[in-house]
Amino acid sequence: MSLDLTGDLVVLFRAVVDVESVSGNEGPLADLVEEALGAVPHLRVERDGDTVIARTHTGQAGRVVIAGHLDTVPVAANLPSRLDGERVYGRGTADMKGGVAVALACAAALSSPRRDITWIFYDHEEVEAELNSLTRIAAEHPDWLAGDFAVLMEPTGAVVEGGCQGTLRCQVTTRGVAAHSARSWLGHNAIHEAAEVLERLAAYRPREVEVGGLTYREGLNAVAISGGIAGNVVPDECVVTVNFRFAPDRDEADATAHCRNVFEGFEVVFVDFAPGARPGLDLPIAQEFVAAVGGVPRAKFGWTDVARFSTLGVPAVNFGPADPGKAHADDEFCPIADLFTCRDALLRWLA
Amino acid sequence: MSLDLTGDLVVLFRAVVDVESVSGNEGPLADLVEEALGAVPHLRVERDGDTVIARTHTGQAGRVVIAGHLDTVPVAANLPSRLDGERVYGRGTADMKGGVAVALACAAALSSPRRDITWIFYDHEEVEAELNSLTRIAAEHPDWLAGDFAVLMEPTGAVVEGGCQGTLRCQVTTRGVAAHSARSWLGHNAIHEAAEVLERLAAYRPREVEVGGLTYREGLNAVAISGGIAGNVVPDECVVTVNFRFAPDRDEADATAHCRNVFEGFEVVFVDFAPGARPGLDLPIAQEFVAAVGGVPRAKFGWTDVARFSTLGVPAVNFGPADPGKAHADDEFCPIADLFTCRDALLRWLA
Repeated sequence: MSLDLTGDLVVLFRAVVDVESVSGNEGPLADLVEEALGAVPHLRVERDGDTVIARTHTGQAGRVVIAGHLDTVPVAANLPSRLDGERVYGRGTADMKGGVAVALACAAALSSPRRDITWIFYDHEEVEAELNSLTRIAAEHPDWLAGDFAVLMEPTGAVVEGGCQGTLRCQVTTRGVAAHSARSWLGHNAIHEAAEVLERLAAYRPREVEVGGLTYREGLNAVAISGGIAGNVVPDECVVTVNFRFAPDRDEADATAHCRNVFEGFEVVFVDFAPGARPGLDLPIAQEFVAAVGGVPRAKFGWTDVARFSTLGVPAVNFGPADPGKAHADDEFCPIADLFTCRDALLRWLA
Repeated sequence: MSLDLTGDLVVLFRAVVDVESVSGNEGPLADLVEEALGAVPHLRVERDGDTVIARTHTGQAGRVVIAGHLDTVPVAANLPSRLDGERVYGRGTADMKGGVAVALACAAALSSPRRDITWIFYDHEEVEAELNSLTRIAAEHPDWLAGDFAVLMEPTGAVVEGGCQGTLRCQVTTRGVAAHSARSWLGHNAIHEAAEVLERLAAYRPREVEVGGLTYREGLNAVAISGGIAGNVVPDECVVTVNFRFAPDRDEADATAHCRNVFEGFEVVFVDFAPGARPGLDLPIAQEFVAAVGGVPRAKFGWTDVARFSTLGVPAVNFGPADPGKAHADDEFCPIADLFTCRDALLRWLA
């Protein structure tokens, strides 16, 4: 099969969704994207791992970066895609193959854009930050990411979402003493010990805070728990992996201190951190984009590579089809109307 | 290498310990046992999977069964064995390679026993009951297990332990609603929900009860916990695997009802059950054995295949070297003196 970038947008979207691309398995989809963009005369295409970058070189003043990740979280019996009225359901429909399909269609259509454009389709966004291919590319090919403004086509319900929350993961470990479970009084059960950790999480009341005119809402969640080595052994270790999503007014020191405070008395090890990004909507180039696409900007809750571009000095916003609240849900979907809204907005801005 | 059954007992014991035989990997040790027993003229040896059975056929009235399992729980950086004064440390030293070594030495030494003897060295005792090779052998070769009395050489500190507690495993599952962890308020965290399950386990006060003149002490423990599918997904399921060790006055209906009661309001599925065995020390043949080996019988806490023989109509007791309280502990060990005490007791009883 191959992707038809100039045909029906919904057909293209479903084709992209139906090529399963759970993090680590982006290869087949990246192959199709590379092949399709390679056939577009006005684009220069490069490939690095499973990331595909296509650029115009019209010589226009200024360059915008439009990026989307190819990977999804694990499939939950929700592939292939399913059309139901005005929605397409399936893994990746919300996060974020709608944005990928719109970007692919616009990349083919915008043969003479009013600014030069760098289109980026990348891998390993849904996993630890150090695996994210943009980490490698920022180190090895920083010029590929250079630009005056960036749009991340993460799901925003087709309105502009400014900034993003930061994210960190930590492991809270409880320890005990191993023993045969038939004589459990000789040991100390580390899993039972984790009751207090889970209680604190269940009782946690996340903060809401206004930053740069937008309201951010935090969250502290166990995303994994594991313990036990055999069915007849009192376990001596239990590990709760916690994900803290924090507003962009916190830096790393503040975010980690907050977690240490919540889990005071327990062993806490930080395993992953990605900073938030303040909205940045006061910048002229951001205001120009907002004016072109319309709507009232709001806060971005999910961590996105907006923060990465922000760190590289490239102002960036989120703008893409589908309700971000459906990202990763088993019943995630994309309203077909959002695909056209986003496509038309990009064409209006850049044609 | 090969096992020398007639040489130094401690050398034999350490050789048996140093062949790692975590459940599922009993093959190499079973090969050595089969080879060594096959060279003993007065034994007829059979092999079924990784179980080795050696029998005398002297025509003496009566037959006793002496059994031990070859497998251990997973290694915890405690192999190879280590000699420290009067103790040998290492995985399997307490549970139950001391019994295996004593049985091997006695099998070679007792060329003209006063009762016929069936020596059994079997696999998969430390895992689910349905994997235990005695389950298969009881179905396919019930004659191999036949006898007037059985001794399980599980660790008892070299005194007779009567009966055994029963064991069951159940899975207590909490459910939630999956969502992206950046918008956790749209989901419901199943791991947080498990706090109540762990609290009940931590607060549980196990019963002590007298059965047949011996005191049994129960235990209810989480032996595993798992939940979470990705580092940025609010998990919709968490499973706590619980092991209930119960006194032999409870039958299956009573034991499962007790667990349902403890976890009332949660989803409970029973995955494994093995009945307890009442002490049975009032039987004449049990009293004869106790008199021969000496000491004051006490209750057996761990589940052992005593219950299986009991179900097959073969009275059985536990008697073997090492402190059962050290079974499965990272620092498990066997006092060297126990090896000789048990060997001498068996020889005194059967020579």
